[in-house]
Amino acid sequence: MALFATEEYHERITKTKARMDEAGIEVLVVADPANMNYLTGYDGWSFYVPQVVVVASAAVEPVWIGRGMDVNGARHTTFLQPENIVGYPDQYVQSPVRHPMNFVADEIKRRGWGGKTIGLEMDAYYFSARGYVELKKSLPDAKFADANLLVSWVRVVKSPQEIAYMQQAGKIAERVMQTAIDTVAPGVRECDAVAEICRAQIKGVEAFGGDYTAIVPMMPTGEKTSTPHLTWTDEPYQNEAAVNLELAACRHRYHSPLARTMYLGQNPPAKLKDTAEIVVEGLNTALDAVKPGVRCEEVELAWRSIIARAGLAKESRIGYSMGLNYPPDWGEHTASLRPGDQTILAPNMTFHMILGMWMDDWGFECSESFRVTEGGCETFADFPRKLFIKT
Amino acid sequence: MALFATEEYHERITKTKARMDEAGIEVLVVADPANMNYLTGYDGWSFYVPQVVVVASAAVEPVWIGRGMDVNGARHTTFLQPENIVGYPDQYVQSPVRHPMNFVADEIKRRGWGGKTIGLEMDAYYFSARGYVELKKSLPDAKFADANLLVSWVRVVKSPQEIAYMQQAGKIAERVMQTAIDTVAPGVRECDAVAEICRAQIKGVEAFGGDYTAIVPMMPTGEKTSTPHLTWTDEPYQNEAAVNLELAACRHRYHSPLARTMYLGQNPPAKLKDTAEIVVEGLNTALDAVKPGVRCEEVELAWRSIIARAGLAKESRIGYSMGLNYPPDWGEHTASLRPGDQTILAPNMTFHMILGMWMDDWGFECSESFRVTEGGCETFADFPRKLFIKT
Repeated sequence: MALFATEEYHERITKTKARMDEAGIEVLVVADPANMNYLTGYDGWSFYVPQVVVVASAAVEPVWIGRGMDVNGARHTTFLQPENIVGYPDQYVQSPVRHPMNFVADEIKRRGWGGKTIGLEMDAYYFSARGYVELKKSLPDAKFADANLLVSWVRVVKSPQEIAYMQQAGKIAERVMQTAIDTVAPGVRECDAVAEICRAQIKGVEAFGGDYTAIVPMMPTGEKTSTPHLTWTDEPYQNEAAVNLELAACRHRYHSPLARTMYLGQNPPAKLKDTAEIVVEGLNTALDAVKPGVRCEEVELAWRSIIARAGLAKESRIGYSMGLNYPPDWGEHTASLRPGDQTILAPNMTFHMILGMWMDDWGFECSESFRVTEGGCETFADFPRKLFIKT
Repeated sequence: MALFATEEYHERITKTKARMDEAGIEVLVVADPANMNYLTGYDGWSFYVPQVVVVASAAVEPVWIGRGMDVNGARHTTFLQPENIVGYPDQYVQSPVRHPMNFVADEIKRRGWGGKTIGLEMDAYYFSARGYVELKKSLPDAKFADANLLVSWVRVVKSPQEIAYMQQAGKIAERVMQTAIDTVAPGVRECDAVAEICRAQIKGVEAFGGDYTAIVPMMPTGEKTSTPHLTWTDEPYQNEAAVNLELAACRHRYHSPLARTMYLGQNPPAKLKDTAEIVVEGLNTALDAVKPGVRCEEVELAWRSIIARAGLAKESRIGYSMGLNYPPDWGEHTASLRPGDQTILAPNMTFHMILGMWMDDWGFECSESFRVTEGGCETFADFPRKLFIKT
């Protein structure tokens, strides 16, 4: 079952503890499912109830605390000793009178950590406002510190095994995108096209299968290409219309997103073709700017200088660190390719660079997922960068 | 585009305002994506950034506040006037120095509501601990109240149009389950079976397509059937092994989950067959106990009395209210079929009743999604209740 050697988990834990020390944090309560997975291997669709991994400087292993019925899931997927897998009774689930974070607090006290300085992931998904209030209430002797993204920053540089999973995801992503381009056509219902794409995502390739992606396929068409996050309908694709394809593949929770734009019909508008050309040039130029030692904002500047020539501007960032994740986002919320981001690129950092131009009633997008190499960058998928025109 | 008449949204808002009045809440900040959809129609995969719908007693329409690039999505999917759709600049996104909830607070103040009593969904997904802290900090003159599940309780009784969408989801769920039973077989990779199931979920039927489900297919096999929330692997299904199928279909965000158990092979263990028989009898008996006026805990008691005869017990609840939702959960976190839940059943309440017995190294589950009718209940899918044995 082990996707990584136990030593790799211990290295991650060691790096996390070093950051905890720097921040004066003795106990870290990790609620982000990707961070829980990163530190222990835990993998299951159980993040709809509160669950945490607790890392204490004084303990060798983290402690997984979750719902009783998921204890067997933790036994199957983590390297943890049985005494470090703790389930709470079902009476804590969605109860008006007690909260799982009360149980978590009790377990922290039971292990003698109730008076420590405790770090919390204040802006993590699935760590709710009430969870925070209850944890504070039940740990009156603790000091609290914001440890948001502490583990996520450890995740920024990937190991060789993590890169291997992202490369596998890139291979699946090529098939997924080809399936989209083969399937989407005038008269085909949007849901029927997405059905084939989802099938391709999960089926994977002969050598390895796919995992669910942290974001569903986003394939707006026509006027809806002016906004990036609408999902599909039952309507058939129309002739003489653009379709944005923001897709991805996932392998063992490691992602490789890939976006392209299609035009269905004989007469793509000149503004779409022109924008496609300049955006692809900007993407190529920005990818060329990637190498160790360069700052994130410099990569964005390379893009900006190209599109400025065409009189265009893009307010939103052009990329972000990504890899291991769960719904609702494959992004890691750490480094972004945008003005002001001083993060220095290093080998095996991984990004999704997405150049999306969303205008009032149309849009064009094109993206690549890549790792920083010793001398530049390497994309995970190999797929033509252009506007796909299907007549 | 409109999935419901604008009048229906206004009815929902009126009911919400009545509950706000009862609770002494003048302004309600709704962060739960299902509740945002329920009150405005907003639908998009944008809940990975903070976004809210603000309902003020003093205003006719709610206000949608989200990321700038999603404003067009709100225009496409909601009935709101343009002045009630407000986007925040991208510099608020995943920034260490500013938070979208600061912007939300500013908009609340701009509308003259900064000194009101403000209700917050304290335990909602996607309302983070930091979002709570920032909102409080930026609204120093407001009073705050916990309004968790306030809108969710309005959602408990469905309208005829909502029921129609759940019935459509039930029709898709039948195809999804049949696809699973047809596809899963010894030697077939788990990912290949799930691929066909995901395809069936999204493809839907001729008359209408499917939407993404709030939980991915859960199909553990062998020893992993002892825990409910593990997802798939690349491994082939084995002969002489059980497979739990916890599946669902979704139509316009309205769900109809359906669970069954298969056994692959000639020799299903006696304990599995015996458990299947008693669990199905318990399910039938519990469904027979459903009618208006009955309390949720009484339905659970009907189940409990059957399995007690077989010397079995189940700690976790046997069902929960569900319908409209987004990942990570299709459940509404309101009424549960469990001891102590005094909720009185009424027509068009909708539940997923799931009888899962997860033992140390094996498990059996069987479920139905249903609505309460005037005289009893009606399941959304029509599918045999039994252990499916495939030799």
